[in-house]
Amino acid sequence: VASNDDKALQNLLKEFHYADIAEILDELNLEQAIYVIKLLDSETTSDILMELDEDNREKVLKNLTAKEIAEEVEELDTDDAADIIAELPEERQQEVINRIEDEDHKAEIKELLAYDEDTAGGLMAKELVKVYETWTVAGCLRRIRGQAKEVTRVHSIYVVNKEEKLIGRLSLKDLIVAKSEQKIADIYITSVDYVDVNEDVEEVARVMAKYDLEAIPVVDENKTLLGRITIDDIVDVLKEEADKDYQMAAGITGDVDSDDSILQLTRARLPWLFLGLLGGIGAFIIMEGFQEAFSKYAVLFFFTPLIAAMAGNVGVQSSAIIVQGLANDDVKGSVNSRLLKEMLLAALNGLILAIFLFLFVWLYNGEMDKALAISTSLVAVIIIAGLIGTFVPLFLDKRGIDPAIATGPFITTSNDILGILLYFWIAKMILGI
Amino acid sequence: VASNDDKALQNLLKEFHYADIAEILDELNLEQAIYVIKLLDSETTSDILMELDEDNREKVLKNLTAKEIAEEVEELDTDDAADIIAELPEERQQEVINRIEDEDHKAEIKELLAYDEDTAGGLMAKELVKVYETWTVAGCLRRIRGQAKEVTRVHSIYVVNKEEKLIGRLSLKDLIVAKSEQKIADIYITSVDYVDVNEDVEEVARVMAKYDLEAIPVVDENKTLLGRITIDDIVDVLKEEADKDYQMAAGITGDVDSDDSILQLTRARLPWLFLGLLGGIGAFIIMEGFQEAFSKYAVLFFFTPLIAAMAGNVGVQSSAIIVQGLANDDVKGSVNSRLLKEMLLAALNGLILAIFLFLFVWLYNGEMDKALAISTSLVAVIIIAGLIGTFVPLFLDKRGIDPAIATGPFITTSNDILGILLYFWIAKMILGI
Repeated sequence: VASNDDKALQNLLKEFHYADIAEILDELNLEQAIYVIKLLDSETTSDILMELDEDNREKVLKNLTAKEIAEEVEELDTDDAADIIAELPEERQQEVINRIEDEDHKAEIKELLAYDEDTAGGLMAKELVKVYETWTVAGCLRRIRGQAKEVTRVHSIYVVNKEEKLIGRLSLKDLIVAKSEQKIADIYITSVDYVDVNEDVEEVARVMAKYDLEAIPVVDENKTLLGRITIDDIVDVLKEEADKDYQMAAGITGDVDSDDSILQLTRARLPWLFLGLLGGIGAFIIMEGFQEAFSKYAVLFFFTPLIAAMAGNVGVQSSAIIVQGLANDDVKGSVNSRLLKEMLLAALNGLILAIFLFLFVWLYNGEMDKALAISTSLVAVIIIAGLIGTFVPLFLDKRGIDPAIATGPFITTSNDILGILLYFWIAKMILGI
Repeated sequence: VASNDDKALQNLLKEFHYADIAEILDELNLEQAIYVIKLLDSETTSDILMELDEDNREKVLKNLTAKEIAEEVEELDTDDAADIIAELPEERQQEVINRIEDEDHKAEIKELLAYDEDTAGGLMAKELVKVYETWTVAGCLRRIRGQAKEVTRVHSIYVVNKEEKLIGRLSLKDLIVAKSEQKIADIYITSVDYVDVNEDVEEVARVMAKYDLEAIPVVDENKTLLGRITIDDIVDVLKEEADKDYQMAAGITGDVDSDDSILQLTRARLPWLFLGLLGGIGAFIIMEGFQEAFSKYAVLFFFTPLIAAMAGNVGVQSSAIIVQGLANDDVKGSVNSRLLKEMLLAALNGLILAIFLFLFVWLYNGEMDKALAISTSLVAVIIIAGLIGTFVPLFLDKRGIDPAIATGPFITTSNDILGILLYFWIAKMILGI
């Protein structure tokens, strides 16, 4: 590939989709990637840039001049352009913006950069097709031809009144089916979903998924039409969200993937492992504290890994289902009824498992009182673990904290310690020590 | 709401979006829900049906006659119609199909029911806008007006030759911008992404997300155009996939949510807990086996929960990142380089944690040899746990098994046992017992 035959390479790459070229570039080293990018025209390269891994994009952009970046940015839709610029270091941002030649594009990008990236404003694009209610269908079609050239895909046509306020929508289909002399005011659909520019992106994703929307207009507090968000951006939001929650549940913070450096991965993983270590030390201290009391019952100590594992597993199961329910907005009913349900569920699971454990210990060990002590504590530990796993995410959510942090190592570690403590307490009571 | 004032209720509900009505119905009891559904016209109720919880939909459908269901189904797009019918018991399926009056709709639904629900065929709809390359733009617009009435949203217009083979695409925008006397053959875009009717839905989702597509045509092995898949169906697929993986990682199988019955939840959770119980019994047997050898070193037993927790946490971290990488298709390089990287990463993490643990045990306990034994084993356990967490999902994936089952309780339990075993072996060696 990199045998320096520019013409052949150019022709070859013309056949590929930009997403495929981006995938190839992610595999090449930096020098080769920049060589290929400089070969291609800025329309293709700007699309490729958007598809590159974030880390690779950063490296490539470092090797382009502000003028070259500005050229790429001019080819992109405003939302993608703003995203690229936002990734640059601050002093370069201003430099690149100043180099953008198209004044409208420049102003729109500046506007978008002002919004928080986690809000509708940070996700929206300025490109949209807008018509006034006073236009006729024929006039509309004529002007749309002009506007539509800038918009990659026309989803919906937004209808505004003369104060630029959103009053309805039209589909291209409606426009084609309508007679050319009709007024927009007579044919537009007044029911239109929209989101506020400061709305959280996760909420936008929820609204769009719920109503099966492919694009949604974004307005300010006066209902002035500001931009639109398309479903492909939402797909990315949903994917990122799911990946983040999944990693969080596994005890990995920060957005890492398997190709990141060992140092980045250590930074994402070590804090949670450290938490686990502290939990283990806590368990050690508890067990040491019970050492004398149970000096005749050494066998009880051999069940602590079992107790800890069960407490951890039950906690993770119940917190995962609550965290997911909260994310999907389908946790209904009061906290109390939720806790009662989890208690019954944990009691049922615990009972089944305890009967099995009782039989095993009894048959293996021959001592019914120990078997009873161990299996009774197991039921109690499972119930408490289930309640904690349910309560903690609900509590965090009420407090406005992302409940996802309550899954994984956090729940496992706290349930480990509490489970072991509970286990020895109950065993002590039952054995009458 | 249910004060039997039909007229007032009808008027009230007219103001709501069908997705909102579905949400309200999910909260009502069955009798009330059916009462409300019978009040509304079949166009609205069919949309509501699609939005109901699967469990509630099943109950509602049980209370409708085959004729009533057929009426609902006639209002739906073919893909949704086929989904609803597929949920019915087999004898009712035939009954409902026979009651569908529109013969074309009936034939299309029958065709869709024949495809596996996890393939492109199972997801596609028959509704699409298709033009022949020989048509003119003006003729095209005229005929599209007819076709488009059936299609809720026009994404792309697919261009076929006279053998009905897919040869390209057009957007409504292209058609509007073109001159009316031009031939389709002169203006259509030849590069068109498509998927085979037997393609796996997850692969379809990957293709659509990668190329930012909002709709993709589905073809058979002769490239004959069969249907199309839209991005809103893909959003659902992605969400289901993410939810399933998340639950799997937490030790929950089957598609349950927090509102399912205690019995359903038990069925989804108990098997994994039972696995954990067996693991705990395994740990007990190992510890008992080492009891005599370590009779003078009782303190070592108090660190087993720590060792087990660390082995479990590291295993989950490394498997989660591999499973996610495999799902996103960005695990590159050989298995060996992957394992080497994980080994270095685990060694680094392990070393940092071991130094901390060594200092703790030494200062707390005053015995350096024990501190050394415990912390050395910790490093070894972390490395092995990381390697297992990396290797198992890669191995399963190579074998064509979903690597997601290797996360959560599976990895935790096997790492628990192995970790404890390794711990005692190494401690035995270092302490020279």
